[in-house]
Formats: sequence, C-alpha cells, structure tokens
Amino acid sequence: MRIQAKIMQDEFSRILLSRGYSLELATESAKNFVNNSLDGMYSHGVNRFPRVIEYIDKGYIKVDAKESVEQSIGAIEIWNGNLAMGNLVATHAMQRTIDLAKIHGIGAVAIKNTNHWMRGGAYGWQAANAGCASICWTNTMPNMPAWGSIEAIIGNNPFVLSIPRKNGKHVVVDMALSQFSYGKIEEYKLLNKELAVYGGFNKEGKLTKDPKEIEESLRPLPVGYWKGSALSVGLDIFASFISGGLSTPLIGQECESEYSLSQIMIAIDVKKLDSYNNSDDILEKTLELLKAAKKDKEDTEIRYPAEREYRTRVENLEKGIPVNEDIWDKIRKL
Amino acid sequence: MRIQAKIMQDEFSRILLSRGYSLELATESAKNFVNNSLDGMYSHGVNRFPRVIEYIDKGYIKVDAKESVEQSIGAIEIWNGNLAMGNLVATHAMQRTIDLAKIHGIGAVAIKNTNHWMRGGAYGWQAANAGCASICWTNTMPNMPAWGSIEAIIGNNPFVLSIPRKNGKHVVVDMALSQFSYGKIEEYKLLNKELAVYGGFNKEGKLTKDPKEIEESLRPLPVGYWKGSALSVGLDIFASFISGGLSTPLIGQECESEYSLSQIMIAIDVKKLDSYNNSDDILEKTLELLKAAKKDKEDTEIRYPAEREYRTRVENLEKGIPVNEDIWDKIRKL
Repeated sequence: MRIQAKIMQDEFSRILLSRGYSLELATESAKNFVNNSLDGMYSHGVNRFPRVIEYIDKGYIKVDAKESVEQSIGAIEIWNGNLAMGNLVATHAMQRTIDLAKIHGIGAVAIKNTNHWMRGGAYGWQAANAGCASICWTNTMPNMPAWGSIEAIIGNNPFVLSIPRKNGKHVVVDMALSQFSYGKIEEYKLLNKELAVYGGFNKEGKLTKDPKEIEESLRPLPVGYWKGSALSVGLDIFASFISGGLSTPLIGQECESEYSLSQIMIAIDVKKLDSYNNSDDILEKTLELLKAAKKDKEDTEIRYPAEREYRTRVENLEKGIPVNEDIWDKIRKL
Repeated sequence: MRIQAKIMQDEFSRILLSRGYSLELATESAKNFVNNSLDGMYSHGVNRFPRVIEYIDKGYIKVDAKESVEQSIGAIEIWNGNLAMGNLVATHAMQRTIDLAKIHGIGAVAIKNTNHWMRGGAYGWQAANAGCASICWTNTMPNMPAWGSIEAIIGNNPFVLSIPRKNGKHVVVDMALSQFSYGKIEEYKLLNKELAVYGGFNKEGKLTKDPKEIEESLRPLPVGYWKGSALSVGLDIFASFISGGLSTPLIGQECESEYSLSQIMIAIDVKKLDSYNNSDDILEKTLELLKAAKKDKEDTEIRYPAEREYRTRVENLEKGIPVNEDIWDKIRKL
C-alpha cells in the first residue's frame, strides 16, 4: 500500500501528541520521519516509528526533556541532549550549526547524551538546503566487532557529508560503517538470498555472504575490513571526546539499550565564498564527468551520492509512500 | 640497512637546498619526509623522496612558489597552494587551522592548487601535538573507477581524523579509500602473493585477490565497494567546492600528472572544553575496553588507530630507519 505524506504526517503527529509532545514538537519530529520515508529510507522512517514510541513508553526517550547548551566557545557549542527525542535534538543542533556558520564561516555543535537521530542524511539535506556544506556523524551502541575481535564493541557510526547545489539536488553521502545493516541482512534472510558481497564472518571465522550465518555469529563486517574498523573507532572517540559524552564501548557498558549517544555537526557557509559561483560550475562539470565515465555494463548508471533519494522523493510525493500493511496497522493502533 | 633520522634529515635538506629551497623550508620539508619514515610510512617518506625531486625538476612542484590566502571569513580561510611543495603548504595550512581553532574554538583552511601532501596522518599528528582534534583530507588524481565504472575517475582521497591524548600517543586515523594502494598491490605481485581480501576486479569483471590481475585491469576496489566510491566522490566534491580548486575528474582532464590538488583541514581546540579532563578519562577507558574485547585468536592484538605507528617510531628512532639500499644510493646521487 502507499500512504500520502500528508496522511502519514498527521498520523505521526497524533501519536506524538498522545505521548505528551507539544503540537510544535510533534509536528517537527513527525516531519523528520515522513521526510526520511519520502526519500526511501523507510528503515529510519515509517518502519522505525513504532520502536521510537516503544522507547518513549519505556522512558529511554524523555518526552519532557529538552536539549541544553553546556558550553559556547566562539564558533563551537557543546550540547547536552538530556535524552530528548533524537531527531528533534539533531535538527535543532544542525540549525544552530548553520547559524554559527553564517556568523563565523564555519560552525559546529557537539552533542552528548542524546537519542538515535534516525537518518543521518536528513541533517546533511538540512544544511544543504540552508546553503551550507556539512559533515556530521553519530556513534551507536556496540553492533560490530573491532578488527581482530569477535565481540560487538564498535558502532556502525553513520557518517554524513553534504554539498549544496543550486538546483536543490544536493550531493549527500550518508553511510553507516557496516557493509550491510542488520536490517538488510534480515531482509536477505527472509528472501532466502545471498548478500552481493561478503557481509560478515560465520561462526568458524570464515567470510560469508549467507545472512543466516552472520545473524548467528553476530560478526558483520566493517566497510573495508580493518579500515572501517579504524574509522569507526576514530569517529566514536572524536564525537565522545569533544562532546564529553559516552563512547560506543561505554554505551555498551552503561546503557540498557541504544541511548545516550554522542554526535557532532559541522557546517560551512558556502555562500560567503568568493569562489562560490565558480565552484558551482566545477561541481556541475565534475558530476557530468563522473556520470559519463565508461561503464562496466551498458545498462549501468553511475550515480552521484543521493541521486536515487532525490528521485524516490519525487515519486513518493506523487504516488504516496510505500508502507507494509502490518506496520501501518500497528501504527494506527499506537 | 638502517639510516639514523639525523643523517636522513641532513641528506634530504642538502638535496632540497640544491634545488633552490631556503634553509628554513628545506629543513621543514625534509622533517616531514623523515617523520613519515620514522612512523613506518616509507611509501610517503624515504621511498617517495626521489619522485618528489623528479616533480621539482619537471616543474610540477614550483620551488619559488608560496601559498597565499585568497579569502578569510571568520574561522575559515581559503588558500591557493600555487603549486608549492605539498608537505610545506599542508603543514602551514594545518598550523593556521590550529591558530584559528585557538581563537574561534574551531578553525578550517581549504586549499586549492596544491601538491601531494605525502602522508595525511602527519597533519593529524601535528594538530594533536598542538592539543587539537582534527579532520582533514585531500583529493588525488583519478586512480579508481567509480562504482559501476571501469575507468579511473575517482580518487582514493586519504581521510584523516585525530584526537589528542595527554600521554602523546594520539589516536590518528589515516585511511585512503582504496582497499589496497597500488604500492601494496605491486609489493604483493613481487612477492608472488595473494592479497588478504579482494582488492579489485579482473578484466572479466570478477572480484580478485590476484595483484597481477588488478594491475592489468586497473580496477582496484574502493573500501566497502559502493560505499567507499560514494564517500570518495563526496570528499572530492566537498574539498574542491569549498576551496574553488580542481576535483579528481578535472585533475584527470586538465593535468599531466598528480598536481593541483584540493585539500581541507579542520581543527577543534579541545583544551578550551569544560569536559576536557573528564573526556580524557572517557577516552582512556574507551581504549581499554576496546583492547580488552574478546579476540578472534589468542595471539591477536586489537590496536587503536596509530598504535603501531607510535611503536614503529620509537623503534626507528633507536635503531634507525629501514631503507632499501638501491633507493638510498639513488637519493645520495640526487
């Protein structure tokens, strides 16, 4: 089935209002879930919504909490998320990062003690829509072994980069550091299909494409093997060190579930740059050259980061957002 | 053979002086090559030095050039490298980035039209030694196909993150986005060995561990397949767009060799943070938990990023830097 964005927005708002959110915050948070779904990121949109409500009901997400500024040093601020709704804290933090960039050329906000931000790319789009280039990332609960380990101790720490284009079709990289998410592995298991490339180790310590074996071993692969493992550790330590928040191993030790995360947002106001007009030409020429590169198969298309999301958005805005009936039923009853 | 750092420093300085560098700049550039070698990054230290001299002699690196500030907006500056020596431009840019961070909390310098910076990690160490966390990256000439392509059109764009530790054993991620460098592939070919994991496609478009097949196809793999390809494009566009410099596809189109690169440096002054003392504990506890995670084999060691480099430095400082005799002979004659 497909649900129009407007109807999904009203439904999410209704449920968030019922949990005690103000109309303003319910609308804002619902919009994030709807936008993620419009862009095809259902796993961090409509499909995730019931779990977020569960986290509210369990008290992991504090309805009455609001982020607070702990320190402000020129172009950078340190925030405490106070375990408020993750997508609200992140949206507000990116807005403040953009404001700091408009003042100082570059701005940053580091956040401790916040909740899952849902889809990282949303904040990349937010910055790009405001005429900023951005970098941001979050840590997660432990969900991968570090290289050389068999125990989940590092996170897949999604990393986001965005660059604005004048036509609004921004370049946005949004990439978790596991080769496949557990959601994707589950999906392939249910379809009884092999993963396209190795996705983890099996219990015998051999690389495997079999989703069942990875679910058994709990040893998914970082992107680039040892390289992604190192990057995951670096991003985690950077965000937790700057924000003064918990790192992935400490979340594993101190939290019952995935909360009290650390995040960092950085933005650069590109409209201030002398080279802005010129750079924009460089950007467009670069994307043209990229897309025109010699292909491995005739029908292959070389896409720039977020090209597909933009197309999905246009389609879903017109036709409605594809939703699994059982999930929608469950949401209606929340 | 092993060469003491002091002797290598004098030799490199002598050669750079002979090419027209001032004593100050020759010493500074030589120090970068020596430090890279001390840390075990021979490919971007002693082994690379002859090629840098070749680039000077060919005029790709301009001895008389000096970087210039094109624009200054609060906490961010845009520089033109003017094709000066890459490791000098990058060292000066990171120093300015640190200075900006000391003033504004966060600082950045974007550089266009510069030369190869040698080892990216050097600038991460530079920032960490000055009490800053840092992020920086460079683009490169085209050296990998984008995902879906068979033609080198994207770069392996080394990406660096650093976090300072009070004991000086900083956490530094320094990672190119190819699974293996061409240098490593060549090394394995000469040893007649297979790569540890897939390193590229062969001419038939199948994944291969055979270094010979990858040298034939010129299709090395990005880390994480499509994910590393997207990240490479994002980093390239970000650095070239902000600096107003050339992107990787444009370097391929406009330059005879690898020059006129775009880079970006970002630093955060962690000593300004209220959470600094507390965060440092978090960092140390995190590294302990990481290293204590359950291992895949009894004799495996789980290392944090740059742990090995630090140990190699201590060893090479004591015993001298391992150098191939032919390469040292060649250098002596430059």
